[in-house]
Amino acid sequence: MNAKIKVGIVGATGYTGVELLRLLTTHPNVEVTAVTSRGEAGIAIADYFPSLRGIYDLVFQTPDVAGLEQCDMVFFATPNGVAMKEAPELLAKNVRIIDLSADFRIQDIPTWEQWYGMTHACPDIVPQAVYGLCEMNCEAITQAQIVANPGCYPTCVSLPLLPLLRQGHLKTNMPLIADCKSGVSGAGRKGNVSSLLCEAGDNFKAYGIGGHRHLPEIKQTINSLQADVAEGFVFVPHLTPMIRGMHATVYLHLNDNINPYEILSDFYQDSPFVDVMKPGSTPETRSVRGANICRLSVQQAPQSRLWVVLSVIDNLVKGAAGQAVQNMNIMFGFDERLGLQAAPLLP
Amino acid sequence: MNAKIKVGIVGATGYTGVELLRLLTTHPNVEVTAVTSRGEAGIAIADYFPSLRGIYDLVFQTPDVAGLEQCDMVFFATPNGVAMKEAPELLAKNVRIIDLSADFRIQDIPTWEQWYGMTHACPDIVPQAVYGLCEMNCEAITQAQIVANPGCYPTCVSLPLLPLLRQGHLKTNMPLIADCKSGVSGAGRKGNVSSLLCEAGDNFKAYGIGGHRHLPEIKQTINSLQADVAEGFVFVPHLTPMIRGMHATVYLHLNDNINPYEILSDFYQDSPFVDVMKPGSTPETRSVRGANICRLSVQQAPQSRLWVVLSVIDNLVKGAAGQAVQNMNIMFGFDERLGLQAAPLLP
Amino acid sequence: MNAKIKVGIVGATGYTGVELLRLLTTHPNVEVTAVTSRGEAGIAIADYFPSLRGIYDLVFQTPDVAGLEQCDMVFFATPNGVAMKEAPELLAKNVRIIDLSADFRIQDIPTWEQWYGMTHACPDIVPQAVYGLCEMNCEAITQAQIVANPGCYPTCVSLPLLPLLRQGHLKTNMPLIADCKSGVSGAGRKGNVSSLLCEAGDNFKAYGIGGHRHLPEIKQTINSLQADVAEGFVFVPHLTPMIRGMHATVYLHLNDNINPYEILSDFYQDSPFVDVMKPGSTPETRSVRGANICRLSVQQAPQSRLWVVLSVIDNLVKGAAGQAVQNMNIMFGFDERLGLQAAPLLP
Amino acid sequence: MNAKIKVGIVGATGYTGVELLRLLTTHPNVEVTAVTSRGEAGIAIADYFPSLRGIYDLVFQTPDVAGLEQCDMVFFATPNGVAMKEAPELLAKNVRIIDLSADFRIQDIPTWEQWYGMTHACPDIVPQAVYGLCEMNCEAITQAQIVANPGCYPTCVSLPLLPLLRQGHLKTNMPLIADCKSGVSGAGRKGNVSSLLCEAGDNFKAYGIGGHRHLPEIKQTINSLQADVAEGFVFVPHLTPMIRGMHATVYLHLNDNINPYEILSDFYQDSPFVDVMKPGSTPETRSVRGANICRLSVQQAPQSRLWVVLSVIDNLVKGAAGQAVQNMNIMFGFDERLGLQAAPLLP
Repeated sequence: MNAKIKVGIVGATGYTGVELLRLLTTHPNVEVTAVTSRGEAGIAIADYFPSLRGIYDLVFQTPDVAGLEQCDMVFFATPNGVAMKEAPELLAKNVRIIDLSADFRIQDIPTWEQWYGMTHACPDIVPQAVYGLCEMNCEAITQAQIVANPGCYPTCVSLPLLPLLRQGHLKTNMPLIADCKSGVSGAGRKGNVSSLLCEAGDNFKAYGIGGHRHLPEIKQTINSLQADVAEGFVFVPHLTPMIRGMHATVYLHLNDNINPYEILSDFYQDSPFVDVMKPGSTPETRSVRGANICRLSVQQAPQSRLWVVLSVIDNLVKGAAGQAVQNMNIMFGFDERLGLQAAPLLP
Repeated sequence: MNAKIKVGIVGATGYTGVELLRLLTTHPNVEVTAVTSRGEAGIAIADYFPSLRGIYDLVFQTPDVAGLEQCDMVFFATPNGVAMKEAPELLAKNVRIIDLSADFRIQDIPTWEQWYGMTHACPDIVPQAVYGLCEMNCEAITQAQIVANPGCYPTCVSLPLLPLLRQGHLKTNMPLIADCKSGVSGAGRKGNVSSLLCEAGDNFKAYGIGGHRHLPEIKQTINSLQADVAEGFVFVPHLTPMIRGMHATVYLHLNDNINPYEILSDFYQDSPFVDVMKPGSTPETRSVRGANICRLSVQQAPQSRLWVVLSVIDNLVKGAAGQAVQNMNIMFGFDERLGLQAAPLLP
Repeated sequence: MNAKIKVGIVGATGYTGVELLRLLTTHPNVEVTAVTSRGEAGIAIADYFPSLRGIYDLVFQTPDVAGLEQCDMVFFATPNGVAMKEAPELLAKNVRIIDLSADFRIQDIPTWEQWYGMTHACPDIVPQAVYGLCEMNCEAITQAQIVANPGCYPTCVSLPLLPLLRQGHLKTNMPLIADCKSGVSGAGRKGNVSSLLCEAGDNFKAYGIGGHRHLPEIKQTINSLQADVAEGFVFVPHLTPMIRGMHATVYLHLNDNINPYEILSDFYQDSPFVDVMKPGSTPETRSVRGANICRLSVQQAPQSRLWVVLSVIDNLVKGAAGQAVQNMNIMFGFDERLGLQAAPLLP
Repeated sequence: MNAKIKVGIVGATGYTGVELLRLLTTHPNVEVTAVTSRGEAGIAIADYFPSLRGIYDLVFQTPDVAGLEQCDMVFFATPNGVAMKEAPELLAKNVRIIDLSADFRIQDIPTWEQWYGMTHACPDIVPQAVYGLCEMNCEAITQAQIVANPGCYPTCVSLPLLPLLRQGHLKTNMPLIADCKSGVSGAGRKGNVSSLLCEAGDNFKAYGIGGHRHLPEIKQTINSLQADVAEGFVFVPHLTPMIRGMHATVYLHLNDNINPYEILSDFYQDSPFVDVMKPGSTPETRSVRGANICRLSVQQAPQSRLWVVLSVIDNLVKGAAGQAVQNMNIMFGFDERLGLQAAPLLP
């Protein structure tokens, strides 16, 4: 207990940053020693986030003076394009890194550069970054110096597919469709008109129909598991008027005589953070609100041979900060559940 | 103008009933002369719905004393199973009927009885009921004595498919998937725990995964247009935390060299209530809030040959009361737009 | 009917601008001939606001080329500080003006400059501006060249007080407290972090506790009616997680033997836009959603001699664009109700 | 750790019941051994509340077979009128009780019977029930066999007033007004039409204007602290469209030369669950979402001598289940913070 690791958070004023702060309050092995924010440097966490009054007495600092290099572990909760610039120096000083942005998620640099519209600042480091979908890459994460924390959609879509793809159960040359719905916090804590309560509230719409950045990320995962399925993958994200929560409805074709419920429940039977519900269940996003859990179910569509997977996460927890803490626990050999045991908030 | 028709509304205390009352306030050719409610008989509309204070001075009555048989036209805004009992007597007295419930929507009686769990009370009348999807059956509606007003999901899904199916453009033996999202008002104005703000708010979930009653209704429409496609139809409804609005995301396979945007925009070019937006558009539900409009767009999914249709309606207007008024206008030879010209409420 | 007036809207991309556009679609005597927006010049209304597709074919223009001087009437739906710069030139060309911003609301220039932190650009014009609280200043509005459309809070608070203050019924030297709650659209269509769905949603808070700009505006009205009451006036605004709607709870001390319900219902008996409900009623904001109505009630607090007034408006309608249209109707001698007759949207 | 107390929850299917279950998951000294529900007997907690899957393996039982008498402590999370019938038998068996309903809150039996419309079933036990406003009655709670857990409004209003009233700082014969706003979960998990998302959503209204049951409860507290102030007390509750959260805006007159901020911050300086913010602060409900905290501030209204107190709680936590756990901790000599240390959920 006395050997707490020192943790820094870069870009701690956004939603994933404050969520990290919230989760880490209950983590017995962690001391947050540095939080940075260029825009809010000099302001106390407790003044910026009154919900954390009485819990943290740290002050936001600029990254250069924050003493990040004295940390054992640094989380990047920054916009895309920041971590790739600042990570190399920290890695050189043996600081371990979990990047919650997209900078290290895509192994193919040209693909990354095309979707993110930037030149990658450290393509040589990308190969050593482990894709931090914990249930897929647990072993590699143990050894990782740098982990690319997955996107929210990729987490919600990939977890139910993982066992089925790994065992090659999907029909090839058939569509694999992920119709996804996200709460508005996925858009971040930026003053965009489209995220205003008066724009996003009492409203539902698709977006990114021409191509969302999480498409190549999910395809990369599918490709690594059952390559001949990736081509048929279709992904349509939607915005739903709620704060937290993500729901994926995945339509898939399975080879004959497969019982996907058995496969999924076997695969995840010892997993503390994936809950396979009985066929016929309709997991709801609020059942995971604030918690690091993916709940899912699979059933055949009525009067059809198509299979339907329903999968829910809290986009800020299992889809971001919670999975980051889970990755940290794995990296440092802690019990995977530390800091992640609070029950979901319902109602 | 002086020859206003007399209109009655049976079951006017629910959401479709009060929406009919709202829309008819601006209809120049209509006088609402009777509103019924078993539960609220004796109470003035204006006391029950303060939003209608100063507009209506009618009092809810029980159906038997309301003088419905003196109406030219009666709307049933009742739960399923009521209209089929009360319609025959009114029809015998030459009152024309628009039923907003499901009693007359399905032509195949055994199918209806299976999905609705009731014995049909007047199977002999069902064949003369015209399915009131205005843009499909306009001609027949003109002559109809009784119109079965379509369900909200069937309206939202069928309108974009109608021209494509009618011209036989869908690939056979391929999945046709409607992933639909509805606001909570679709569940009606009943005290169900699952429709509470604290249950349905800040939450997203699928429901009716084992089979929703709108499935056979949509299949009936598909079957009548391009029968070999109906078998592959999959329908998954979801509940989204907003009051009004419905969004269908339809995934379909088209025959080669079809330009669905051209087909849709040609088909609907003179239609006042279907708005075909440019490919790449993402129609949002609030853009039709309170208005009798279906906005839709169609585009190919990125990196895929699958087509994606996005379609939005206000479930209470084009999905219920608005389409009912449109049906009435067609039946009585009025300008189709009367009572339906107010712009959507945004924000 | 053929002599429609030509109307321009300056700053038509905000919430009050688009609400003016919505309301004017049903106004028989108005043709909107110019809409301006510096930021969106060149973009069609229908592209910017899909809810208005098929209704307007105008394009946003910069104010200088928009031909505003050919209008009979120009609405300013701009941020504070714009109208005072552009109004003088239009007035000189006999264009009548309704300013929905605060530039002409406060007659005392030093007070205005203190609260709004700007030097007034045309203090000489302020005295001729009529304060457009229609029910208070109807006569003067008829003759006005320029009308200062009231703020939302001042409208909601002043309407119930007007008859009581005018007749001197409030106790002097006693507190007069307005505890007000507003939907988020009152903050406008700007990308402020505090107006995000994830910040303002599922949350309630007071704001402007140190002093809100509507305080001097309400005090000016009170002062003009029963001056010795203004000093005790206290105003605390709150933000409530909804899009439209405003609720004022006003606590007041009346002289003995006053029956405020009688006074209010007498005063407003012929008013189409103020609805005095029976004592004991609790008007709700949704009962006026989208409509130009103030509903109010007054009753004694239980076990107390204090009186409680409850007053609701739609902040964008009676609190902004609707009252502006009402003012226009009065200025041009139209029926006061034109363009304002649609029933509230419920649910 | 090995001496966990055994805890039962009667009526565990409502919002305060499931909130107790959520909070107790992290309490090291508690084992929940019995949960009862007449309506859901035989159903597993995990099936009824999927948010608690994997956490509890208990099954709801009827109260008679649940073995409540073997518990050290029983919470009543029942509708009013249940605890008063079942408590005496448990007390006789030395089970300690915390009643979250209103049965034991009012010491004056005729007052209770008048407001709750029932004959009290055990008036003889009421005098020994300690009113569980922890910060007021901590000493007495230590010894209590039965605690009456305060209502949500009384908690939110009384905590900021407590130090001021106890020291006699309020002006007598002047109004003391509590304008309160509650989220909808305060209405409980019952299928009331008025609590539907489509009724309570996007809407704001006062209610209980003729008298709310929490009025006599707050008056009783005021009366016990500074009796001459109780008569002027006015309480108006409002419903705000959010799930959790309560905000009180209290208007009060203080004797001259009182600095209420100093008094409050002194009084609560060692209190883990009352956070006195700097004058000028506007505490927001989401800053306490899910946490057992009351945040408050006090300041003078602008241009006035009236003082304004702003106070927020989560109505289900400090306003119900959290305070109940706090009471239990005090009763059993545990650290007051056990089970109550999770940070608020924001956003």
